[in-house]
Amino acid sequence: MALIVQKFGGTSVGGLDRVRHVAKIITETYNQGNDVVVVLSAQGKYTDELIARALEYNPKASKRELDQLMSTGEQQSVALAAMCIQGMGYPVVSLNAWQVGFKTNTTYGDARITRIDTERLQLELDQHKIVLFTGFQGINRRGDVTTLGRGGSDTSAVALAAALHADLCQIYTDVDGVYTSDPNKVKGTHKLEEITYDEMLELATVGAGVLHNRSVEMAKRYHVNLEVLSSFTGKPGTKVKEVVKKMEKSHVSGVAKDKNIARLALVGLKNEPGIAFHIFSLLAQKKINVDIILQSIGRDEQKDISFTVTKSDLEQARQILEDRKDTLGFERLEINDHVAKVSIVGAGMIGNPGVAANMFEALFNAGININMISTSEIKVSVLVDERDADRAVQAVHDKFFTEYGR
Amino acid sequence: MALIVQKFGGTSVGGLDRVRHVAKIITETYNQGNDVVVVLSAQGKYTDELIARALEYNPKASKRELDQLMSTGEQQSVALAAMCIQGMGYPVVSLNAWQVGFKTNTTYGDARITRIDTERLQLELDQHKIVLFTGFQGINRRGDVTTLGRGGSDTSAVALAAALHADLCQIYTDVDGVYTSDPNKVKGTHKLEEITYDEMLELATVGAGVLHNRSVEMAKRYHVNLEVLSSFTGKPGTKVKEVVKKMEKSHVSGVAKDKNIARLALVGLKNEPGIAFHIFSLLAQKKINVDIILQSIGRDEQKDISFTVTKSDLEQARQILEDRKDTLGFERLEINDHVAKVSIVGAGMIGNPGVAANMFEALFNAGININMISTSEIKVSVLVDERDADRAVQAVHDKFFTEYGR
Repeated sequence: MALIVQKFGGTSVGGLDRVRHVAKIITETYNQGNDVVVVLSAQGKYTDELIARALEYNPKASKRELDQLMSTGEQQSVALAAMCIQGMGYPVVSLNAWQVGFKTNTTYGDARITRIDTERLQLELDQHKIVLFTGFQGINRRGDVTTLGRGGSDTSAVALAAALHADLCQIYTDVDGVYTSDPNKVKGTHKLEEITYDEMLELATVGAGVLHNRSVEMAKRYHVNLEVLSSFTGKPGTKVKEVVKKMEKSHVSGVAKDKNIARLALVGLKNEPGIAFHIFSLLAQKKINVDIILQSIGRDEQKDISFTVTKSDLEQARQILEDRKDTLGFERLEINDHVAKVSIVGAGMIGNPGVAANMFEALFNAGININMISTSEIKVSVLVDERDADRAVQAVHDKFFTEYGR
Repeated sequence: MALIVQKFGGTSVGGLDRVRHVAKIITETYNQGNDVVVVLSAQGKYTDELIARALEYNPKASKRELDQLMSTGEQQSVALAAMCIQGMGYPVVSLNAWQVGFKTNTTYGDARITRIDTERLQLELDQHKIVLFTGFQGINRRGDVTTLGRGGSDTSAVALAAALHADLCQIYTDVDGVYTSDPNKVKGTHKLEEITYDEMLELATVGAGVLHNRSVEMAKRYHVNLEVLSSFTGKPGTKVKEVVKKMEKSHVSGVAKDKNIARLALVGLKNEPGIAFHIFSLLAQKKINVDIILQSIGRDEQKDISFTVTKSDLEQARQILEDRKDTLGFERLEINDHVAKVSIVGAGMIGNPGVAANMFEALFNAGININMISTSEIKVSVLVDERDADRAVQAVHDKFFTEYGR
């Protein structure tokens, strides 16, 4: 007998038929002799509907009242699912954040989890009940409702799994696992049986995010065994864990693409020490995340610095730099938002310098120009023209998973 | 400066325009320098919609999960209204039953209030915030959501007013006060400025219930000054209190009608002592409320007993009596569900025996036959044929409020 936490997203519980299907998965897990704690999101697009209504009442409503309103979505979801499971003859109870004692800080709309009291949960599990818990929400020390922001329900599930020392945390999504690349766009992909937390984090960063990073980071910190799987297929998904047994020969776990990126280049900067520090601390103050950075080797009295930001930060970054043109002393600011980042991710890269070279070779053979390069211990990213991105992913994927890896 | 509790029902908060209107009433009260605590119902028919959805998921859902689901209606209502009031520039906070500590027993779907912690409420009032509170719901000692059943939101408001020692509890409804009779059906009615708790209770019992008895009983017990008024007219309503100054000459406050009634007659009972006790204890065991009772004076060896019950209890009462036909030893059971009860209510009746006589005279002059009579210190009820009911009410109303009273 194991303790299993399962999480189902809004699509999985959108309407009676889907709830019935989810109830079948839950009760089958229960029938196998497991303790089951289930985290549910609000049904379908209900949270969006509530936000739309809030905007009607006050476009500048306080986040506290927005959280108070939005949290009703998950509460309805767990109550209705509990009714459905009751109808199938199983003992079940729905619980809210405040009933469980799912504590967060006071940042309404984007709260961080601070503590979970497991007493009530344990009490219900001791009575062999299936527990349905409202994802995405918590309560703060004032006794007010908070919501957890993006990826909130996944994080709720992982946090519960950590607090309860669950044997497994299953995140049901609309995909059936993590693939070597996007199966809808790349030929020859296959599903990974296992992947490490770090690889999963890197994959999410480069835009292949099946799971939100926050939940993966928490899983890594508390050693929660994760599984990403589909509520529709019923097949095993991808396990996310600390160390994976490398059954596959490839050193690379996946190839991903990120088009939500733009490049800024400061051309003709004075070749003075501290200039890079100056630029990036300005951006950091405004919470603009900078990704790949490339600095030309200074010649004469000038150098260039290029870097990438997400597209949503582009305009603000441009403004900050233009405003300081005189202080920073650059000739011109070049912007290119028709770029894409292609990355390979794999824990097996460490100590295998040949991996990066193989990637570059594949791109060269495909006639694709590399703009910038960035590497970490388990990732190599290159910046290419946006129009080359899909071909680049396919070429790199072929290299590692057709020619080389398999 | 006073502390005022205001309650608005579902119709009053059904949609943005109505919430805006309610927000105006609330903020005007606040602007006059008052502390304001507001109890809101779910918007419009939202509770009914939630129940309908629950029935889809499980027609036999547990009341615990139903309460969990239904309570989201008031939560949405207070959050949206809070947003609206925020938009008008006022400090406001919405609170749920569990945030306030609005404790009840564990009877899901029909819970009784056991205790209210006023700490959080007082904290918010000390910060000069308008407090919006979810009516109709509480939490029990298990930490689960309960709902209060019929008349729940009125009762929530009165209970809060009692706990906070409020100066006034205003119940906003779709009528602008308590009338001498139903103004939609009786000519010449007028609104009462004041009425006693007892009169209000009797009026509710005889089917003129502007307020649910439960809330009036609680107001009486805790000496809460009530006012019933309309959210639409902006005029003063009817005050409900312990003792009223009798500005009006009439000894009667109102005339009411109740068609939800049926008469049973046990004909040819043995004239033995204890037979009435036997019958009514049988019915009491099944929680059937018996209203008017009439026992014929026994002649020879037989007597008759007639009594009334609500229509919903009729079939069960009939069954109980038929099953014991031999034990009770009656000849036959006669049933008439085409009857109506017409009542006059007034604290001024005490020590004025002429009042009942005036009522009978009015009915006699209108050619209406009286089936049964029942009197209490502040009420006289008569049973008439259902088809005579409206004429009876008009005739009695004319007698007291046109000829006699004014």
